[in-house]
Amino acid sequence: MLKGRSLIDTMDFSIEEVEEVLELANQIISNPEEFSHLCKGKLLATLFYEPSTRTRLSFEAAMLRLGGEVLGFSEPNSSSVSKGESIADTVKTIGCYADIMAMRHPKEGAPQVAAEHSPVPVINAGDGGHQHPTQTLTDLLTIKAAKGRLSNLTIGLCGDLKFGRTVHSLIKAMSRYENNKFILISPQELKIPEYLKKKLEKEQIYFSEIEKLDEVIGELDILYMTRVQKERFFNEEDYIRLKDSYILDEEKMEKASKDMIVLHPLPRVNEISYEVDNDPRAYYFKQVKYGMYVRMALIAKLLGVK
Amino acid sequence: MLKGRSLIDTMDFSIEEVEEVLELANQIISNPEEFSHLCKGKLLATLFYEPSTRTRLSFEAAMLRLGGEVLGFSEPNSSSVSKGESIADTVKTIGCYADIMAMRHPKEGAPQVAAEHSPVPVINAGDGGHQHPTQTLTDLLTIKAAKGRLSNLTIGLCGDLKFGRTVHSLIKAMSRYENNKFILISPQELKIPEYLKKKLEKEQIYFSEIEKLDEVIGELDILYMTRVQKERFFNEEDYIRLKDSYILDEEKMEKASKDMIVLHPLPRVNEISYEVDNDPRAYYFKQVKYGMYVRMALIAKLLGVK
Amino acid sequence: MLKGRSLIDTMDFSIEEVEEVLELANQIISNPEEFSHLCKGKLLATLFYEPSTRTRLSFEAAMLRLGGEVLGFSEPNSSSVSKGESIADTVKTIGCYADIMAMRHPKEGAPQVAAEHSPVPVINAGDGGHQHPTQTLTDLLTIKAAKGRLSNLTIGLCGDLKFGRTVHSLIKAMSRYENNKFILISPQELKIPEYLKKKLEKEQIYFSEIEKLDEVIGELDILYMTRVQKERFFNEEDYIRLKDSYILDEEKMEKASKDMIVLHPLPRVNEISYEVDNDPRAYYFKQVKYGMYVRMALIAKLLGVK
Repeated sequence: MLKGRSLIDTMDFSIEEVEEVLELANQIISNPEEFSHLCKGKLLATLFYEPSTRTRLSFEAAMLRLGGEVLGFSEPNSSSVSKGESIADTVKTIGCYADIMAMRHPKEGAPQVAAEHSPVPVINAGDGGHQHPTQTLTDLLTIKAAKGRLSNLTIGLCGDLKFGRTVHSLIKAMSRYENNKFILISPQELKIPEYLKKKLEKEQIYFSEIEKLDEVIGELDILYMTRVQKERFFNEEDYIRLKDSYILDEEKMEKASKDMIVLHPLPRVNEISYEVDNDPRAYYFKQVKYGMYVRMALIAKLLGVK
Repeated sequence: MLKGRSLIDTMDFSIEEVEEVLELANQIISNPEEFSHLCKGKLLATLFYEPSTRTRLSFEAAMLRLGGEVLGFSEPNSSSVSKGESIADTVKTIGCYADIMAMRHPKEGAPQVAAEHSPVPVINAGDGGHQHPTQTLTDLLTIKAAKGRLSNLTIGLCGDLKFGRTVHSLIKAMSRYENNKFILISPQELKIPEYLKKKLEKEQIYFSEIEKLDEVIGELDILYMTRVQKERFFNEEDYIRLKDSYILDEEKMEKASKDMIVLHPLPRVNEISYEVDNDPRAYYFKQVKYGMYVRMALIAKLLGVK
Repeated sequence: MLKGRSLIDTMDFSIEEVEEVLELANQIISNPEEFSHLCKGKLLATLFYEPSTRTRLSFEAAMLRLGGEVLGFSEPNSSSVSKGESIADTVKTIGCYADIMAMRHPKEGAPQVAAEHSPVPVINAGDGGHQHPTQTLTDLLTIKAAKGRLSNLTIGLCGDLKFGRTVHSLIKAMSRYENNKFILISPQELKIPEYLKKKLEKEQIYFSEIEKLDEVIGELDILYMTRVQKERFFNEEDYIRLKDSYILDEEKMEKASKDMIVLHPLPRVNEISYEVDNDPRAYYFKQVKYGMYVRMALIAKLLGVK
């Protein structure tokens, strides 16, 4: 039962609950018209304490395409927070206006605090380097749609595996399904954190750590590329030295299976060459569309209208 | 007849006109569904020349819950005003797009100028330290809902009574009803302005000025708490010395009548302890909800759709 | 056939296509109610990489008055562009959410690049000093509505003719209709660019260059006033010396024909005295309203819903 619940971390939902959301998303994809009045009279508040245009617009499009309405703010400057109000008071107030809210916050744990005080469901739209559960749901829906299953997959994750929260969340989420293997492709400096490695070992889930993408690309069902985010680096030199190390181009794509799909949470800088965009295995723009559909399903489920 | 009118100062409306708005707000509260298409096809423009998230969202939620739509800006940076356009020209232009507008402006009198030139109704959503009439209507609706009347009440106003415009407006508005008494609780430095004291004396309305909240709390029907706004102080020291002087906690609440209600225009900093929130006499979050309903009623009345 | 097309430059549309848009705009003006559900379920994204409140609100009001919905951003700060994403990727992403987009960009050519990559129609809402085609459509609709024709007109253009892109676009657009004459009224420093003069000469279209407005005002069917934009000047002195040179007041209006109409793209600073506003020949606020109607027609045509 998802009605009235909040979503802070993908792992808050059981496998069955995730399945329920993905199933509804698939129904919406098949027949969007049928769902275009589902949230009539409902309001979504988007509380973005840091700008994130694509995430905000995905939530807003999702709600509008369900026939609901949207209000909110996209930057902290234009909010009351400067007057020293607590998050608890803000969500108690906005919970008087809106039926559900999506919160983006630079501070880890802020959406959790919000959910504890809010009279309406709160969706975490990203908190610092911590969680971004609707991105993970997007990834799951895309994989399911492309491969027909969430198990028995060899998943390559490439790029910044140290700071990339979407990668950590996806590993955790995919670990819950049977017989998935993870190929972790990154420079030494950007390997996945120790805690995550220990978790995988403890749960006896197969993973390997590799430095070169072209050596393993042929084995993959899914290649998840990530951006080397400048803001995560401690100095400019490291960034410049590493940022181009893991670029996917058509040459590398030739070594990949014809069924492999390429995912990316976007925005990209140059880690996927533009020439790859026209490859039928490039799924990252389809992924954007799935992101909107999965948010539609999630909103509908938390509001209990479906 | 409120159709086509603007609201700049609560006192622009007669007692009967205020009553008309409150009466419609009560009908909306009883059956919001019935009013959810009232403003179909109508547009509200929110012109916020300074950010005020909660006021803006309250207006937007109000319009959206009436089935109308919203457009506007939430900061002066994103507006044309930087190109040197007059307020008169701005509202003549936006009056071509929208059916009604809510204006927040740092300069006193700006909404009045707007109303003089606008082809559509203008609602003052706060102008400097001057007027904020929809806050006053919110207070009146909350008092009426909680106490069943707007007369024969002992009203305590506590905190910054010098700069707090909501306090001044509430005193003026409640002075129009029979036999209300005002207990003004503040430090010497933050007493109500002389002009207001003279007005009360002239109209032979009872008021007393007191320094300590706990000495009078037992006599009150309504306790209106206010924030000690840092930005109103001339120096940091005064702020630090005074800000904690008038904090409402459960200990003080024990001395109050079981029927007393606590109001606050929000946001609060620390002038009401969080422990008070669960007290059934704490009405400040209900007040937020009433704020949305009273704006719904006001918009409907000025548009003449009800 | 305009369905699915983008509008980057007014000249992209044939005379017949412009006529099609103006014709629909006129139908909307006659009976707005009839069109108030035309874009039900459709989303317009407003991508404003620089603020332009009046243009943005005109687009948003247009879409809302067609029963559609709106999402977007009004400043670059609140967008993902700071993360180094290309315009191509941004529009491919936003094209997953929205059915049509309006883009304002400080860089010339950016909307053209957007149109080349977008899966949905792109409307240029102004790119640098380059094109602003919906302003030109607005001007054409206003002239047609006021004069009943787009040919056989004597058109005076006054003020900054060097940097004013709306002037250049209007000259090009009106040159396509038979027997129009242009009277170009400006100081030496702000005459129209050479390339435009050559174009007119080549096409054997009559124009004259004049310094004093009052010497020619009596001959005009249309007087198009423009703002002397401070930001276009290289130094403060030149601005101060020139800005008041071409002010329209009632004294000059007395010399004009009783059928002449005054247009202005707005915002104005002081180039039209307020006293002129009440003159029935002042058409600049009607022009604002026509701007909304022409955008309604354009959106409907590009979406192919009419």
